[in-house]
Amino acid sequence: MVNREVHKRSIQAEEPEQEKGEMEENKCPSKTEGKPIRCKAAVCRKAGEALVIEEIEVAPPKAWEVRIKVLCTSLCHTDVTFWKLDAGPASAFPRIFGHEAVGVVESVGDYVEEVKQGDRVLPVFLPDCGECRDCKSTKSNCCTTFPFTHYNGMPRDGSSRFKDSNGLDLSHFLFVSSFAEYTVLDVANVVKISSDIPVDKACLLSCGVTTGVGAAWKVAEVEQGSTVAIFGLGAVGLAVAEGARLRGASKIIGVDLNPDKYGIGKQFGVTDFINPTYCSEKSVVEVLIHCSSPACFDQFDRDFVWYKLLVNDQVIREMTDGGADYCFECIGLASLMQDAINSSRPGWGKTVILGVEMHGSPLSVSSSEILRGKTVTGSYFGGVKAKSDIPFFVKKYLHNELNLEGFVTHEISFQDINKAFDLLLQGKSIRCIIWMDK
Amino acid sequence: MVNREVHKRSIQAEEPEQEKGEMEENKCPSKTEGKPIRCKAAVCRKAGEALVIEEIEVAPPKAWEVRIKVLCTSLCHTDVTFWKLDAGPASAFPRIFGHEAVGVVESVGDYVEEVKQGDRVLPVFLPDCGECRDCKSTKSNCCTTFPFTHYNGMPRDGSSRFKDSNGLDLSHFLFVSSFAEYTVLDVANVVKISSDIPVDKACLLSCGVTTGVGAAWKVAEVEQGSTVAIFGLGAVGLAVAEGARLRGASKIIGVDLNPDKYGIGKQFGVTDFINPTYCSEKSVVEVLIHCSSPACFDQFDRDFVWYKLLVNDQVIREMTDGGADYCFECIGLASLMQDAINSSRPGWGKTVILGVEMHGSPLSVSSSEILRGKTVTGSYFGGVKAKSDIPFFVKKYLHNELNLEGFVTHEISFQDINKAFDLLLQGKSIRCIIWMDK
Repeated sequence: MVNREVHKRSIQAEEPEQEKGEMEENKCPSKTEGKPIRCKAAVCRKAGEALVIEEIEVAPPKAWEVRIKVLCTSLCHTDVTFWKLDAGPASAFPRIFGHEAVGVVESVGDYVEEVKQGDRVLPVFLPDCGECRDCKSTKSNCCTTFPFTHYNGMPRDGSSRFKDSNGLDLSHFLFVSSFAEYTVLDVANVVKISSDIPVDKACLLSCGVTTGVGAAWKVAEVEQGSTVAIFGLGAVGLAVAEGARLRGASKIIGVDLNPDKYGIGKQFGVTDFINPTYCSEKSVVEVLIHCSSPACFDQFDRDFVWYKLLVNDQVIREMTDGGADYCFECIGLASLMQDAINSSRPGWGKTVILGVEMHGSPLSVSSSEILRGKTVTGSYFGGVKAKSDIPFFVKKYLHNELNLEGFVTHEISFQDINKAFDLLLQGKSIRCIIWMDK
Repeated sequence: MVNREVHKRSIQAEEPEQEKGEMEENKCPSKTEGKPIRCKAAVCRKAGEALVIEEIEVAPPKAWEVRIKVLCTSLCHTDVTFWKLDAGPASAFPRIFGHEAVGVVESVGDYVEEVKQGDRVLPVFLPDCGECRDCKSTKSNCCTTFPFTHYNGMPRDGSSRFKDSNGLDLSHFLFVSSFAEYTVLDVANVVKISSDIPVDKACLLSCGVTTGVGAAWKVAEVEQGSTVAIFGLGAVGLAVAEGARLRGASKIIGVDLNPDKYGIGKQFGVTDFINPTYCSEKSVVEVLIHCSSPACFDQFDRDFVWYKLLVNDQVIREMTDGGADYCFECIGLASLMQDAINSSRPGWGKTVILGVEMHGSPLSVSSSEILRGKTVTGSYFGGVKAKSDIPFFVKKYLHNELNLEGFVTHEISFQDINKAFDLLLQGKSIRCIIWMDK
């Protein structure tokens, strides 16, 4: 399944040299500090069109801003969703996409004390100002100083820091725009991290993987010995599994139409797999609760229970003792959200919505399900408070607790960035790391 | 507002005598133990028809059953809902309604060790077997041994313990049927309580008040200084206010169409009142979040802020800093459930559904509201685990912390039971205590 394309590199081995290079660059602030930087960016000129590597100009950071050199970036489904978007206020071209990355601080604007030149940082799309009621609360990650909307520029003034070769502004994307060698971020969108973590693993924590692990860890607070059902095993769903595994879940059921997700899910703790393709016209919840079709259940290997052998309509009720303790919707389909809620256990079952509904349909649920003691909740970014929680997850990785290895299925050079789109659209990649220096 | 009809009695003063009578009766078990008891019951022969006081026969308790002498009972909206129901499996006539009461144990069946003759007990509609996974868990009150459905008989075998004068079975209601001088309950539906609490106050804890206080206490876990919005100020909604007051909420906003609820709400900690009648075509959430019509807001008295003076669309956003921390839907209308969710605060706002949707409509909510960190949950009986939590609330009352005084707006004798229906249907009563011995 894992297919490292173009060049499989030993990140750890190259780290010191790369780090040294960065530091040397940063010992000479006069070279670029305070000046525009001319560099390459992958610009999208029109919705759905291939990106074009162009030379652009990146303005120096203003007050409370940070300019970073992007080390690597990766493509997330959200980039693709907005790349396709050809109308509405969130559609803004020409644009520089990318919001999952890792970089090193090139220079900082006035009043920035949190990071300095040479610091390894993750850009994050969800601001964390540290000052508002939400940022000060442990319960919220919805910064109210810079409310998360699909801005096309910087969070404080909406303006762009990018110009193309004709001097025209290029739109930002989700406050990050990492498909460029350099980008400018508000300090609220920057998290300083340890340089001990390999660059590509750090990159994963910038968005998708953190969303999934965070949802299991912080939103659901999955408990030791509990049962979990995950609807959709993309990067976020797999990361939910990894988070649930870390929290000690005893049964982690993956639900996905792609049978290939079956093998990769095991790496992240998925213990059972349901492929709704085999369930004819039954909804997943019917399969989960009332399935009488043993063909719905696949088997990992000999060590896994052969659910195929359990030919009765109590099969999944038996799997989860009446419904899963925690259900996660990671696709963004209202019908699947319903399925997730209906699959959760009366009494205490909690369903966490992570997918952005792709058709704008409302979530519709029988209130009697809710009255039976079920809970529905959700979050952007897995409920993670970027500046405090991401360093925690970095430590979990460095202590060999958090598994990030299996997420990177492909690696390519920046010039081949369109290939990352192809791989994701074809369902072949989980995460494709795009290296800026190749 | 409070109008004690027929006979206002000093419960405390009469308690010792009454208690003595009970005890004397219970010193003579041979009189009725093991035999049918002939007594009066208010029988409903047909949906929506007035109850008729008839002489019935109450069978002795079978194994795991308890026969109680009802001291007083009260009428809840759920009785009225099922009283009107003229079709479907939950419609079963002739029937003995009533599920909110207090009584004294007359005799017990085999294997009953938890209570004995003479014990003061509350009947509860939601079983608490103490043995199943749900009853053993602190997180659930949905007993799986006796799942709560609208059974028309006893929970273990569905049979009736009541016969009319022609020897025909009478249906039970919600495992209680307290509109009779004697009734038979499963031991899973009985809670032993202290006899220190006045009978009428104890009666309130048998259903509605416990549901509301429990929802604030156990489901929402309202926090000190938080903001609360309650949609519907019936007994349950007022009890939510009381629970929120006890938990230290700083602002408790009541929303009700009946302006009379305004005065009574103050007794239970309601600090602010919104009457949607004045809000023209705006939904309550529009009023809560974007209200530009100062007429929507009433004023309690001089000590309360005159929201009428705040003529701008930020008025309720300012009231609750962007949305209430906790919202409660206590009516059972899908549209009001939506309003409640939309009125809750992004980041951590929690909406608790308590009303049974009266038209069977699904709850429809934009998933983007959920993704903003909101939570929707609900429960029957306020998440209360009857056998452990009700004695806790009794103690809270005896320690002068829990206010139960204002709930009893009327008192009548058993023979006038139909008057209780009139008072509730006319919105005149919160709780009408029906005394069996008058």
